[in-house]
Amino acid sequence: MAPSTGRDLSDPTFRASVIELCGALAYGELVGFFTIVHDAQTAPRLAYRVALAKVASNEFTQYERLVGRIEELGGDPEEAMAPFTASFDEWVRRTPPSSWLEGLMKVYAGNTLASDFYREISAYVDPQTRDLVKEVLQDSGQAEFAAQELRQAIADDPAIAGRLALFGRRLIGEALSQAQRVAADRDAITMLLVDDGSGHGADLAEMTQIFARITQGHTDRMEALGLSA
Amino acid sequence: MAPSTGRDLSDPTFRASVIELCGALAYGELVGFFTIVHDAQTAPRLAYRVALAKVASNEFTQYERLVGRIEELGGDPEEAMAPFTASFDEWVRRTPPSSWLEGLMKVYAGNTLASDFYREISAYVDPQTRDLVKEVLQDSGQAEFAAQELRQAIADDPAIAGRLALFGRRLIGEALSQAQRVAADRDAITMLLVDDGSGHGADLAEMTQIFARITQGHTDRMEALGLSA
Repeated sequence: MAPSTGRDLSDPTFRASVIELCGALAYGELVGFFTIVHDAQTAPRLAYRVALAKVASNEFTQYERLVGRIEELGGDPEEAMAPFTASFDEWVRRTPPSSWLEGLMKVYAGNTLASDFYREISAYVDPQTRDLVKEVLQDSGQAEFAAQELRQAIADDPAIAGRLALFGRRLIGEALSQAQRVAADRDAITMLLVDDGSGHGADLAEMTQIFARITQGHTDRMEALGLSA
Repeated sequence: MAPSTGRDLSDPTFRASVIELCGALAYGELVGFFTIVHDAQTAPRLAYRVALAKVASNEFTQYERLVGRIEELGGDPEEAMAPFTASFDEWVRRTPPSSWLEGLMKVYAGNTLASDFYREISAYVDPQTRDLVKEVLQDSGQAEFAAQELRQAIADDPAIAGRLALFGRRLIGEALSQAQRVAADRDAITMLLVDDGSGHGADLAEMTQIFARITQGHTDRMEALGLSA
């Protein structure tokens, strides 16, 4: 990776890219908030509903911090999110959980995919945005709750593993498909990642590697749950 | 009203009553959180979804503060909420909004009914819980967003007023019906409000007056929106 420490926010193209990236992250948090709350309604126990409400509430706090950063950078949050609403909404629509455990899997996979993406992307933004992205990343450790419940449920009834593994594959497949759609459509974000000749940013091969690392991370996590990925 | 400043938390009966009251308030906040998020999904614009997510997120913060107070008082939050889950859930179930505006009305009426109830009840608890209840009360001013949207919608299309007024009457009617059910079932909370012979607490006539004042407050607010209540 070639961190973009040399680029600065006085460059309007770079600034626009960072704003757009924050827009993508912010809308992701907002979708996470609504999805988690929605899935929490099927929780078998009040304690689980509360735990998920807590995770969701953190997502909203992160959303607000990202929106704050967009505004600091002179962007309009709604405009910055607009290019990504269709892709995120489509991911949610195409991966309906059919059970409480699949809902938990979606929380877990959604959070960890987002974390991995944040980790990769933080190399390419300005230092202040990078610090924010790292902080947002830390908070999402809340999804460990979902991982614990999933591990326990699979240990208690190994027969559910096959169906959950299938759902896990759908989650990553649809996520990659939407990510590639965004990469193809959105110049500003792609510019951030793709070498602009200045030696900063990642080139296209690097971008493919990012997707590969994210997929590998997902695979490792599924296996850690005892699922074949 | 006869504020209960003379009663203190070393009295186990009084302490149990305060814990139970905090349990009722906490579960109310949790239900508010889930209901608002659910209704936000029908919002016609992203900005509205965000505004409602913000209101919901505040409800969750208030929930956490009330749970913290229950724990400080030596209570178990889940146990403290348990007696009230059926009534709150039933209120939600019996008042399904059939439109985005009815959803907003439910946010507005739910928040303001809760605020009025908090204001009344704060006279009967220990000073520290009273301070917390007052703080929780302040935050719920967020529901002003719903009131503004409703006023605007009614001004734009007076024909919707009749149906919204009907829905408003159902909201208060079902709320009073659930409140009376709770009052009949729960000795601990009733003890807090009803004169125990010590001169503290409200008597049964006072309790009826509390319900009457809450109903009047709702009526006034409906009229302020331009609705016949």
